[in-house]
Amino acid sequence: MRGAAVGFRRGLAASAGKAEKIGFVGLGAMGLRMARHLLASGRDLVVFDSNSIAVDRILSEAAAAQTAGHGQGQGPAPGAGEAAGGGGGAAPAAARVYGSATAVTSPAELAETPGVGVVFTMLPGPAIARQVYLGQAGLLAPKAGIVPRVLVDCTTLDPGTARELAARVRATRVHAGLAGPRLAGLPAANPTLLDAPVSGGVVGADKGTLSFLVGGEEAALPAVEPLLKAMGSTVTWCGDAGDAQAARLCTSLVMASTMAATSEALALARRLGVDPELMSRVLNASSGASWVSQSYNPVPGLSPDAPASKGYRGGLRSAQVQSHLQMAVAAAERCHSPVPMARQVLDMYTQVVEEGMGDQDFASVYRYVYGAGCESGEWKEGQTLFGAQHP
Amino acid sequence: MRGAAVGFRRGLAASAGKAEKIGFVGLGAMGLRMARHLLASGRDLVVFDSNSIAVDRILSEAAAAQTAGHGQGQGPAPGAGEAAGGGGGAAPAAARVYGSATAVTSPAELAETPGVGVVFTMLPGPAIARQVYLGQAGLLAPKAGIVPRVLVDCTTLDPGTARELAARVRATRVHAGLAGPRLAGLPAANPTLLDAPVSGGVVGADKGTLSFLVGGEEAALPAVEPLLKAMGSTVTWCGDAGDAQAARLCTSLVMASTMAATSEALALARRLGVDPELMSRVLNASSGASWVSQSYNPVPGLSPDAPASKGYRGGLRSAQVQSHLQMAVAAAERCHSPVPMARQVLDMYTQVVEEGMGDQDFASVYRYVYGAGCESGEWKEGQTLFGAQHP
Repeated sequence: MRGAAVGFRRGLAASAGKAEKIGFVGLGAMGLRMARHLLASGRDLVVFDSNSIAVDRILSEAAAAQTAGHGQGQGPAPGAGEAAGGGGGAAPAAARVYGSATAVTSPAELAETPGVGVVFTMLPGPAIARQVYLGQAGLLAPKAGIVPRVLVDCTTLDPGTARELAARVRATRVHAGLAGPRLAGLPAANPTLLDAPVSGGVVGADKGTLSFLVGGEEAALPAVEPLLKAMGSTVTWCGDAGDAQAARLCTSLVMASTMAATSEALALARRLGVDPELMSRVLNASSGASWVSQSYNPVPGLSPDAPASKGYRGGLRSAQVQSHLQMAVAAAERCHSPVPMARQVLDMYTQVVEEGMGDQDFASVYRYVYGAGCESGEWKEGQTLFGAQHP
Repeated sequence: MRGAAVGFRRGLAASAGKAEKIGFVGLGAMGLRMARHLLASGRDLVVFDSNSIAVDRILSEAAAAQTAGHGQGQGPAPGAGEAAGGGGGAAPAAARVYGSATAVTSPAELAETPGVGVVFTMLPGPAIARQVYLGQAGLLAPKAGIVPRVLVDCTTLDPGTARELAARVRATRVHAGLAGPRLAGLPAANPTLLDAPVSGGVVGADKGTLSFLVGGEEAALPAVEPLLKAMGSTVTWCGDAGDAQAARLCTSLVMASTMAATSEALALARRLGVDPELMSRVLNASSGASWVSQSYNPVPGLSPDAPASKGYRGGLRSAQVQSHLQMAVAAAERCHSPVPMARQVLDMYTQVVEEGMGDQDFASVYRYVYGAGCESGEWKEGQTLFGAQHP
């Protein structure tokens, strides 16, 4: 079955470019959805995750899609997978040729797999990223050198870790026998690492509308950009290794601060007698307008597609925002840049996480910091964590 | 001269509706520009300001416009007055009939002037608003009752003061002999107060593009809305007396927090090696987007029309933002709504004002809080007020 599918697929999927395989490490809420888009674009994946359930899931999805989809495009459309909001539904009638997925048992094994040209990593944070790259069974571990010429880390990291990983990748050798042809503008003997942190959250990963910020050696971009475009809608080149991570953390800083301030204003307005719907209209028509108030309103029902309207699920987890803010504050300390707003909002997300709400969407700061009272319009003692305590 | 002008004007200025006069108290940076638009729309004004220079200025502008403008529309176009940005330049060729301006020596005298139907007040804050309304020579002082049936306070106030002033106006009597006809839906014997705080700053006042939030007795709106539309572009009805002020303060809270967070992120990005122009593009294309980053960028040159590109002049003063935040925090305390973000950003604007920068546009928080180092790309010790101190 596989052989026939491959021949057919390779013929049609010209946009996939080379017949090389794509590595993917990290099949969590984001990575799983991103990998689906690569499969849906006809790429063959070699995957690793320490969670075998996640691995089995993508293998069986790909196998089912290939069985059903010989030239008929009946594979599971990305977005139709889970109730993660927004995407999904009707798969296009046009033929879609699904890629294959195979699994390996470690990042090191992935890096030794013949035919793997590019490897993506999508991990929870810096600690696991270090392990996946630098660990004993990590991507850079193979003694004889590694097969992929380009590694792409979509994890959100501090710029320092990103720069260190890039240097370590650059100091690794490519496998003399198994690696593919040299890429123009890059050294023949060494691989390279791009940092490519994303924004758009689980919904964006599901719909294939992620925004990628990319930094590193620009000569590696042509090999990677079509793959990023299969998973997202915008790719912004940011400069050297670590610069994309810096831009990503600064974006999180603004996003989280705006979320907290907008939540605070909507709760205050309600207690002062102004309905959140009216207050949101006033904000959106004025100097208070933001992506938060317009597209991701923290009050249930005001942005129908936002996680707040779906029980604060399916977006960007508060624990993830806390982690981004921690990295932003640490990076700011190292370069002596004052970040009083980041510190304030980090305090708030830390308390949200400590209260056990880390898995909820970060808009839940509206409920958990500003108090359930802001939903009923009544203040209830003890229901907020901050600010003036009811005497 | 005056008589001839009046006859001509009244004939043409049908859009002005009644021949009644409009009162205007407070001819500061905002009020002067707002009054000019009323004059340019053909309304006759009766003005008061404790600053006689401001009064003389509008009187002479109106007189000059009337002399030059008999049917020729050569009056000074609003926006052509000062170098306050954006507006101005070519007056339309079509005939424009300028209203007249006369001055009185106190708010009380204004409230006793026959023919005054609506009075606007545009004042620096609650203390002066109290004086103008409730003082010995205030608008409500005339013993025999007051002539205007509708008072419109465009000052940004705390909702409590707005509600108190509305109650005091409602408890005042209209002058039995001099007041104009009763307005439908409003009591015959008492005037009413609308709170109508604005956003848009000096630039918006100059261009006539202010946004008004309006609260109070809705039956008074038809008499006032054409006048507001002469000075601004949007009028949003917010509900009862004080509600518009609540919405205005909440807007300032979000605007100031977003400004501080965006400034902080742009300064941090620069120190991490990411150019503010690139960082702003990343913000604007992502979950970090806001009115601040898109239209009012605090880095000189990135929003060409913004005060940051004009030496941080001509926008909304930091001292004004501080005052709004103080009112927001006080209002929040009274209704026990937690406002950690507002407190943090109030601290910052308080320090900006204490450093003597209160008259600069509020985007100057980028320079004065986050440090001149963020402009040169180099950290310079002692140039920021907050955060990590260089050891």
